[in-house]
Amino acid sequence: MPAYTPPVKDQQFLLHDLFKVSESDIPGYKDLDRSFTAAVLEEAGKIAANVLQPLNVVGDMQGCSLENGVVRTPDGFKTAWDEMANGGWMGLAADPELGGQGMPYLLNTAVGEFFSSANMAFQMYAGLVQGAALTLAAHGSDEQKATYVPSMHEGRWSGTMNLTEPHCGTDLGLIRTKAEPQDDGSYRISGQKIWISGGEHDLVENIVHLVLARIPDGPEGIKGISLFVVPKFLPNEDGSLGERNRLSCGGLEEKMGIHGNATCVMNYDGATGWLVGEMHKGMRAMFTMMNEARLSVALQGYAQAEIAYQNAVVFARERLQGRDVTGAKNPDGPADPVIVHPDVRRNLLDQKSFIEGARALAFWGAEMIDRARRKGDEEAEAMVSLLIPVMKGFLTDKGFEACVLAQQALGGSGFTREAGIEQFVRDARIAMIYEGTNGIQSLDLVGRKLPAKGGKAIMSFFELVKGFIRESEGNEALKAGFLDPLKAASKDLQAAGMYFLQEGSKNPLHALAGSYDFMHLFGHVSLGFMWARMARASMEALELGAEDAEYYETKIMTGRYYMSRQLPATGLHLARITSGADSVMGLGAESF
Amino acid sequence: MPAYTPPVKDQQFLLHDLFKVSESDIPGYKDLDRSFTAAVLEEAGKIAANVLQPLNVVGDMQGCSLENGVVRTPDGFKTAWDEMANGGWMGLAADPELGGQGMPYLLNTAVGEFFSSANMAFQMYAGLVQGAALTLAAHGSDEQKATYVPSMHEGRWSGTMNLTEPHCGTDLGLIRTKAEPQDDGSYRISGQKIWISGGEHDLVENIVHLVLARIPDGPEGIKGISLFVVPKFLPNEDGSLGERNRLSCGGLEEKMGIHGNATCVMNYDGATGWLVGEMHKGMRAMFTMMNEARLSVALQGYAQAEIAYQNAVVFARERLQGRDVTGAKNPDGPADPVIVHPDVRRNLLDQKSFIEGARALAFWGAEMIDRARRKGDEEAEAMVSLLIPVMKGFLTDKGFEACVLAQQALGGSGFTREAGIEQFVRDARIAMIYEGTNGIQSLDLVGRKLPAKGGKAIMSFFELVKGFIRESEGNEALKAGFLDPLKAASKDLQAAGMYFLQEGSKNPLHALAGSYDFMHLFGHVSLGFMWARMARASMEALELGAEDAEYYETKIMTGRYYMSRQLPATGLHLARITSGADSVMGLGAESF
Repeated sequence: MPAYTPPVKDQQFLLHDLFKVSESDIPGYKDLDRSFTAAVLEEAGKIAANVLQPLNVVGDMQGCSLENGVVRTPDGFKTAWDEMANGGWMGLAADPELGGQGMPYLLNTAVGEFFSSANMAFQMYAGLVQGAALTLAAHGSDEQKATYVPSMHEGRWSGTMNLTEPHCGTDLGLIRTKAEPQDDGSYRISGQKIWISGGEHDLVENIVHLVLARIPDGPEGIKGISLFVVPKFLPNEDGSLGERNRLSCGGLEEKMGIHGNATCVMNYDGATGWLVGEMHKGMRAMFTMMNEARLSVALQGYAQAEIAYQNAVVFARERLQGRDVTGAKNPDGPADPVIVHPDVRRNLLDQKSFIEGARALAFWGAEMIDRARRKGDEEAEAMVSLLIPVMKGFLTDKGFEACVLAQQALGGSGFTREAGIEQFVRDARIAMIYEGTNGIQSLDLVGRKLPAKGGKAIMSFFELVKGFIRESEGNEALKAGFLDPLKAASKDLQAAGMYFLQEGSKNPLHALAGSYDFMHLFGHVSLGFMWARMARASMEALELGAEDAEYYETKIMTGRYYMSRQLPATGLHLARITSGADSVMGLGAESF
Repeated sequence: MPAYTPPVKDQQFLLHDLFKVSESDIPGYKDLDRSFTAAVLEEAGKIAANVLQPLNVVGDMQGCSLENGVVRTPDGFKTAWDEMANGGWMGLAADPELGGQGMPYLLNTAVGEFFSSANMAFQMYAGLVQGAALTLAAHGSDEQKATYVPSMHEGRWSGTMNLTEPHCGTDLGLIRTKAEPQDDGSYRISGQKIWISGGEHDLVENIVHLVLARIPDGPEGIKGISLFVVPKFLPNEDGSLGERNRLSCGGLEEKMGIHGNATCVMNYDGATGWLVGEMHKGMRAMFTMMNEARLSVALQGYAQAEIAYQNAVVFARERLQGRDVTGAKNPDGPADPVIVHPDVRRNLLDQKSFIEGARALAFWGAEMIDRARRKGDEEAEAMVSLLIPVMKGFLTDKGFEACVLAQQALGGSGFTREAGIEQFVRDARIAMIYEGTNGIQSLDLVGRKLPAKGGKAIMSFFELVKGFIRESEGNEALKAGFLDPLKAASKDLQAAGMYFLQEGSKNPLHALAGSYDFMHLFGHVSLGFMWARMARASMEALELGAEDAEYYETKIMTGRYYMSRQLPATGLHLARITSGADSVMGLGAESF
């Protein structure tokens, strides 16, 4: 059975040594001093480790069941839900006027990592409520906000996002679900939605569905899609629950993982709904919360890697097999712990150096979201929008790979259900697919974010990196291990951007055929940048005589590993990109 | 539900265009003309597609069950087993004097790919019989051979390999299972073995266990291990089944995949067994068949990728989503098939170019095994021994990755059990672990195979590559796309070898910390070499006016993709290797 220790210390390092949150000019940040964030993180960590994590294997084994339209979640989920709700965790970063706690999104991201590590299937129920509530808060009428949002933040009601239909996922312009206007201002919603996470379950009194649908006689394609709020029970004016709406769960998907989360077929049979925001502007409303939604999935990627890694380390310290080639480390035992072997360390360090870099990147993303939302900083908004597809795509791909590495570190045990690591692999797999597949992320990056405003955001990114390198000049301890490799990797990224600019403008296929590699190349440079910053912060802490020198030294050593063993991947991605589209597009569809 | 089409044409290309088997000087090869191999492959392909593949999902869903010591395999497995046995497939490459068909191992490898693609869990039962029978044929007494082997080749009896114990897998020197000599020349075997594939099941009348155990008062460690044959039922002199032996299945492992294969805890409670080969030389006997055993796992890696790929292609041709950026390809439909999109092609070509290169490498390995066994060619033996860990490690790692790519190509469907691709991912995962984890393969490569006889085998490999490049000089069509990248990649491999020679001799950790990357680097160069050879063979076929020009053109184009988009990975692996051991060994075990 796997265990989980919330990495509070590492999060505190990011909040205070790296991002120095309590010195920040972002409104609300000055309250985030060390002792306050420690208290919040410790408390969230307790729930994650003691309440959610023990239910993770229960959820995997039991899954959800559908009987007579009722979906039952695994044993213990309801109790855990109520504990989360009562603790105020559901609306941690939400508007206090709508029942939220008003904390920075960064803090929500920090505790969200714990919850995701401990029980990804469970956390998805909670995460989707946040997304739906935020969307309603941003686009709903005052009445809609008052009717739905506070109950969601209290955890009494939940929320869902209904986009996919059997014939369309990525290409939402093909949506067929109909919304017919009624005389009372409501709409009758009819159609089938699939893969609706938490579409039906027994954790809450009411479920607030946000549904994309088409109003008859509107524009064709994506420009004729509107957003509707369609509650399971129609709320009465006094807030009590009224009539059952004409919608139902028609089936549960059997999946590779996240069995504890109900993935529903939702049938809308003339259900009553109300327009959210403007008519035909449904996609825009849905996309407002895209950055948060995608960052929360990016988080899942490295959060699963974190718990998998922790358990791989325990195994590697305890499993006795073979001898250290430089001399026995456990001479009185039958063999040495396998962590003495270089290849086991290579495996563990590939994980560790990714996870800690990923955490820094995700936190930076959350900080920029706060900066954009709380300060109206447009540059931060542009930068985080550029980086979001990188975070979602790169962190979930690499997070999955890290889970596979952790599984490998256990040898045969890794394949058994008993050891529990294989569940992390199965659960982590979905993060590469949902909320826009990683291929779609790469298209969003190369086709939309990169060229936006003449490439302004990526220019700012390069400026940040260059600025950091310039500021650090003369820091010899940082130079060879961090600054030089970062400079080289950043150059690869620039070269890829130039290739797109020059070749892609002649033939867009040259850019599109390299989009996935560009996403990974950008991911590596981003993590390299984070590592260089973390190394400098650690050196500063050591110079100031930090108490826990070993923590900072380990951080620097882990960073060196990333810079020398992961970052050189930028060269491979650049080579793939600059090989162009010819070998990609050469075959006819029938020749595959 | 997935489907499967045996890639007969691609195998015929390898056998006849590339390896030109019927012109070979290997005894038995001259009978392998095109029509003969076509007949065998077609017949095997029918069984794979029509009998085994439909049972693949049944096996996954039902798994095996243990009741009162009896293991039941999934519905249909017994009927399929009998069909395989009656067709003579069980002993296809085995000695005719022991009831085998006497075919080359290469042909066995070809059909083994089909069976593995169609139903990996099922094929494992059959594959292990072959391994056990070969071991007995090589090391058993004449009486043991006569008693056991023909019944195994007939498929009436099966066989297992019993190595692992709860406290030891890789480090078999720690084995505790005891074998006490009896007055009648037999031994009493006592101990527990775990992860025994096919340890107990209902497909056959008798199960012949090969068990590693320790004779009291022998040398400690690995040098005191002997091999025993321990049948489930003791055979009478007339070949009929006698007394039930004192051994039993104590439990079935719950696993991530290959649910149709029974992974057993085997308890030996004073069971009767007989020594196979020499006392205390059990490891040597077990290792005789190592090349075949590991090649058969390498096969599983790309075989799962093959069926996953086939189904991803079907999806990509049928799923309509989005439009071709260069203009609609399906203007009358609501959208274009997703195979028009560059990133979908990138995904599919990463799979296709790997699978076809892997198949060539595996076939080359099988051909060298035939050359060694049938001609006593020691150079072939040395070369295949060098390449076996590369094949096992690289082809199963990349085969798994390819399955993950195939799953990704299906978007959300890829995560559902209904589409069936996720099973290939779960099944393929084990191939990276069993028969020596891939980390162990890399140690075998760098610690044992590479330095053997002063590096003679890898020198021969470089000579082969150089010779091929030299022979192809002046072939301008081959130069830029194939020869130049092959030369560059081969140079990276040589540089890595030199690094190990220079730095590893000073400090073995520098070699060990790079072993895994060396295995992958070597794998890429091997596949690059195969692709260059396949491209040249295809060009030759085209020059000779081959009928199916499109097949050969597709082959060349797929090769170009590999050379330009996969082979550059050698640079990354070299960079990782030459970064040395410092960042790998720097952390204390407690700092992970």
